[in-house]
Amino acid sequence: MQSHSPRNPDKTLPPGSTIGILGGGQLARMMAVAATRLGLNTHIYSPDANCPAALVAEKIIVGPYNDLDRVLEFSQSCDVVTYEFENVPAMTAKAAASAVPLRPGARALNVSQDRLEEKSFLRAQLDLEVAGFEDITSIHDLRRAVKRLGLPSVLKTRRFGYDGKGQVILRSEADIDGAWEALSPAPCILEAFIAFDREVSIVAARGLNGEIAAYPLTENIHRNHILHTSAAPAQNDDGSAAKIAAKILDHLDYVGVMGVEFFQMKNGQLIVNEIAPRVHNSGHWTQNAGCTDQFEQHMRAVAGWPLGDARPRQGVVMTNLIGDDVADWKTLAAQAGTHVHLYGKSEVRAGRKMGHVNRTK
Amino acid sequence: MQSHSPRNPDKTLPPGSTIGILGGGQLARMMAVAATRLGLNTHIYSPDANCPAALVAEKIIVGPYNDLDRVLEFSQSCDVVTYEFENVPAMTAKAAASAVPLRPGARALNVSQDRLEEKSFLRAQLDLEVAGFEDITSIHDLRRAVKRLGLPSVLKTRRFGYDGKGQVILRSEADIDGAWEALSPAPCILEAFIAFDREVSIVAARGLNGEIAAYPLTENIHRNHILHTSAAPAQNDDGSAAKIAAKILDHLDYVGVMGVEFFQMKNGQLIVNEIAPRVHNSGHWTQNAGCTDQFEQHMRAVAGWPLGDARPRQGVVMTNLIGDDVADWKTLAAQAGTHVHLYGKSEVRAGRKMGHVNRTK
Repeated sequence: MQSHSPRNPDKTLPPGSTIGILGGGQLARMMAVAATRLGLNTHIYSPDANCPAALVAEKIIVGPYNDLDRVLEFSQSCDVVTYEFENVPAMTAKAAASAVPLRPGARALNVSQDRLEEKSFLRAQLDLEVAGFEDITSIHDLRRAVKRLGLPSVLKTRRFGYDGKGQVILRSEADIDGAWEALSPAPCILEAFIAFDREVSIVAARGLNGEIAAYPLTENIHRNHILHTSAAPAQNDDGSAAKIAAKILDHLDYVGVMGVEFFQMKNGQLIVNEIAPRVHNSGHWTQNAGCTDQFEQHMRAVAGWPLGDARPRQGVVMTNLIGDDVADWKTLAAQAGTHVHLYGKSEVRAGRKMGHVNRTK
Repeated sequence: MQSHSPRNPDKTLPPGSTIGILGGGQLARMMAVAATRLGLNTHIYSPDANCPAALVAEKIIVGPYNDLDRVLEFSQSCDVVTYEFENVPAMTAKAAASAVPLRPGARALNVSQDRLEEKSFLRAQLDLEVAGFEDITSIHDLRRAVKRLGLPSVLKTRRFGYDGKGQVILRSEADIDGAWEALSPAPCILEAFIAFDREVSIVAARGLNGEIAAYPLTENIHRNHILHTSAAPAQNDDGSAAKIAAKILDHLDYVGVMGVEFFQMKNGQLIVNEIAPRVHNSGHWTQNAGCTDQFEQHMRAVAGWPLGDARPRQGVVMTNLIGDDVADWKTLAAQAGTHVHLYGKSEVRAGRKMGHVNRTK
């Protein structure tokens, strides 16, 4: 593998430039579509030639994420590289960053792809409120941690968890052995269970020059651990979430869009649940709110453009179409005030995100 | 050339279907992008492999419009074929329609690509108000017509005119010879000059089942015969324009989006200037009005989907970026409430449409 100094480290990339995206799912697809509005081109790197983004990008380069030569070749065909998922391997990120700027940077990946790193960072470095947590590498650790954090609590793998995968809830001491068996030998953390009043999130962007634009607070409802609806702007937004997001973005010298998920307590207190260094499902409502949407915002940020206006003109409720929900596409498409977004996935599977609808209020 | 019965003549095309677009300019590009939102794919037919739509479609088939075998091959790769320009040759349209439904149909093309046909159709068949006109095939016709219609009047080629090309204004009898020399031997019409109060247009769609959805009236300002700004909703819309559009759509058994341009007189009277059987520059504002935009609306119609909501949530002023105007892209991108749309054209030429901006009111 050759090594290079990144090209154009601080430059605004003009129309006609190429943004590389690691990953080819629906997030990459919607970023690619947003890029074309700005006259920017996209190249996709994905192990799957038939991924949702393949049909809308200028070019798709197919390869496994650990083929570093191929990742380098891909990156050299681009002016900047970004990603649609936080589990980009560190070596892959490094290979990309050796050719062109990687935005957001490697530090955001390191912090967000490991729950222990993430929670330690948020609590120790930023003094933010997170759920109590303990590092778990053995059944003995787990027993001790259960005593310390109490029950119920949640055992989670440190890495590769999403949509409820890689986590088990412990309601009584009798659940300990089974939970450990289910997740070990992966390194885990135990998290105290938060009796939250509601789940909220904020999507915010930071530009290359440090400017920050936050969308309003969004209230989220999950079903079976998968996001079901997001309503924005959420009631009772006192601005705290935006301040927390800005603190995280600044501290990471972040460039791009980030999603920050919170548990909110009855008294209004916000507990950071997790951060996602990418466009976020709870920001899909921005596509039909009359402001710059999160996908365009991310493209603007990583290309060094001024950020767009993040103030919605109208309220929106986003509902995911999971698995068979997508069968209703025609009915949904006929509803006034409803905007249907489909991801071009031919195979319907239970739990698979097939699309979403945005309903304006 | 083989001949076929069109597939799926009345079917709603499900997500995953392919819409073919004849033409690869910015209108095709924005249609292709809108199609992906609905999970529909697009194939482009264009003589230019590097056209603006090439980078955002699943496939581009390069060939001249008169290569009917190639057009047939293209059409057979699609479930329906539409177009971005009204000058599709009749034989090309016929070749496409032999394989799959062509929407809008050949009749809309016949009527709109010839000013004489168009005006005759509007006046004789629909009893609509148009500027006085005369068929001109010789200098003698022209002299006679000038006497009948008076001066000033406008000599226009019957076919292939756009953005002021193919027309000459006659202010005095001394202009007659020069005008004829400039445009002959192309068949022409002479049109009476309309002392209009303002120029307005309406963009409306008709679905496969006959449903009609019209956007509100739009007020247009031209500079050097090229559309400069469109503001919507226009003041003083009494609904007449929408009724006229519906009459035209129904009479042509039309499927898709149509633009109808009018001259409006001080007393409110609407005189139809021309019809465009396609998405229309004066409908670009719909992209940022919080309703279904005209590009998605056209994709919905030609795919046999229910039409989307055409009621804007906010007013928008669209300004075209012509030639060097595009140099201001970064300044424009930084303005609050401004949405920049660039077409991915690398070569800037005077008079060339490079992009547009939509400003919400």
